[in-house]
Amino acid sequence: MSVSMLLNGHPPADRGRAIAADDRGLHYGDGLFETALLTGGRIRFLEDHLERLAAGCGRLGLPCPERAQLLKEIAMLTAGRGEGILKITLTRGSGGRGYRPTAGQAATRLLALHPAPEPPESPDVGIAVRWCSMRLGRNPALAGIKHLNRLEQVLAQGEWAAADIAEGLMLDTEGELVSATAGNLFLVREGQLITSDLRYCGIRGVMRGRVIVAAIEAGIEVEEQPLWTTDLEAADEVFITSAIRGIRPVARLDARKWPTGNVTRELAAVLKLW
Amino acid sequence: MSVSMLLNGHPPADRGRAIAADDRGLHYGDGLFETALLTGGRIRFLEDHLERLAAGCGRLGLPCPERAQLLKEIAMLTAGRGEGILKITLTRGSGGRGYRPTAGQAATRLLALHPAPEPPESPDVGIAVRWCSMRLGRNPALAGIKHLNRLEQVLAQGEWAAADIAEGLMLDTEGELVSATAGNLFLVREGQLITSDLRYCGIRGVMRGRVIVAAIEAGIEVEEQPLWTTDLEAADEVFITSAIRGIRPVARLDARKWPTGNVTRELAAVLKLW
Repeated sequence: MSVSMLLNGHPPADRGRAIAADDRGLHYGDGLFETALLTGGRIRFLEDHLERLAAGCGRLGLPCPERAQLLKEIAMLTAGRGEGILKITLTRGSGGRGYRPTAGQAATRLLALHPAPEPPESPDVGIAVRWCSMRLGRNPALAGIKHLNRLEQVLAQGEWAAADIAEGLMLDTEGELVSATAGNLFLVREGQLITSDLRYCGIRGVMRGRVIVAAIEAGIEVEEQPLWTTDLEAADEVFITSAIRGIRPVARLDARKWPTGNVTRELAAVLKLW
Repeated sequence: MSVSMLLNGHPPADRGRAIAADDRGLHYGDGLFETALLTGGRIRFLEDHLERLAAGCGRLGLPCPERAQLLKEIAMLTAGRGEGILKITLTRGSGGRGYRPTAGQAATRLLALHPAPEPPESPDVGIAVRWCSMRLGRNPALAGIKHLNRLEQVLAQGEWAAADIAEGLMLDTEGELVSATAGNLFLVREGQLITSDLRYCGIRGVMRGRVIVAAIEAGIEVEEQPLWTTDLEAADEVFITSAIRGIRPVARLDARKWPTGNVTRELAAVLKLW
């Protein structure tokens, strides 16, 4: 499957030349994105993605596309398709030179359907992860939302090429443990579920939110709090969440190993991921 | 004068549709830029801009365009033009979905010539500035270079619209005084020149570098150090530098006022700015 695309509601004639040279997404990362899984012909957790996009628009002062318009375009793009990845990219649109956003700019709305990743043969078999040297800068004003300033993640993923390492874990500049490069991190200790509170940096993942709700409904105690590497060392189970990859248990980080534990299994079952 | 443009060495047929929909500059801010002044038919401080661009490429692991190629394209773009602003934007080019940079990607190189700003009638008359609420996040790994992750500056400039306020001053998340939204900040106290050391954030401006060299050559003591708001309060002279605007004295911040002082005047004279 090749990539299908809608730019402001229309398929671009030439996707190699589709975006205005003065788009503020290009020049400043002035925008947001969402990455959602198309599975069985439906976008998984679509409402959550639209909600986060709207929240991000509020934080950045971007006009949020109308819900009906987005739903229509998603339907156009996914018609007759069973599996894939929907990426929505929203920028403040074309603007002159200079940082200042101009009121009334027409936003750029790019919807693209990418091939779905190969699902893991045995999703309950844990992955190996590593530490990233690249740290996440702290800025509460930008924390949580999925904005387009992602150089830290780009450079972090550039740190390794080994195919047997599936993810990298990132600390912030003060040494707090925040997340993986493209997913949130959960620890289980004595039956309690713990994840970073993301008050300074990181992205508030859609799957992260679903896991927290599922845990609470299952009677599992959940804590969003500052995490440190000592918390990881002390964890009985570790897993990474992403809207695309669901729940992936972490089996190994350097010499430390973890089993795929019961809490991880229960949450994956409740969310129908495995 | 309208905007002239070269994309990878060629004028785009349609600048409203010039950039690939999967450009990593758009999706992640994965790139760099330079903004230089064309004056009297020449790019001011061109070597400094090319040096900073190369340094940024080194930090981001981007292939740096060949110097001869850049010079050729700048000459094409500025031929017969006296005044303007040259903007060079460099991204890691087209890439698939996902943060990871792929080796051997062809970078996107966008050169644009914008109209020059109206020069101030009396450059020695100070400007009024204000505090920005938006803070700068700290990340030494990205500090100093002019990368494309500029949401903080965009949101900071979005905080005011009053035409009589020319700039905003930004603190970092820990309260250190870093810079203006689009320029570096210098303080003069008892004849000594002080500016932020930019070890955690901010951009190492080309004009900033020139001012420091000019000061040293003029026998003025220069300190690059952490700055705090108390340093600003205590300053005898305050000015902001930018490659485009040169040296602009700061006359007022809320109730605090400063004169255009002798050190500021001397530096502007040595650098032939006023």
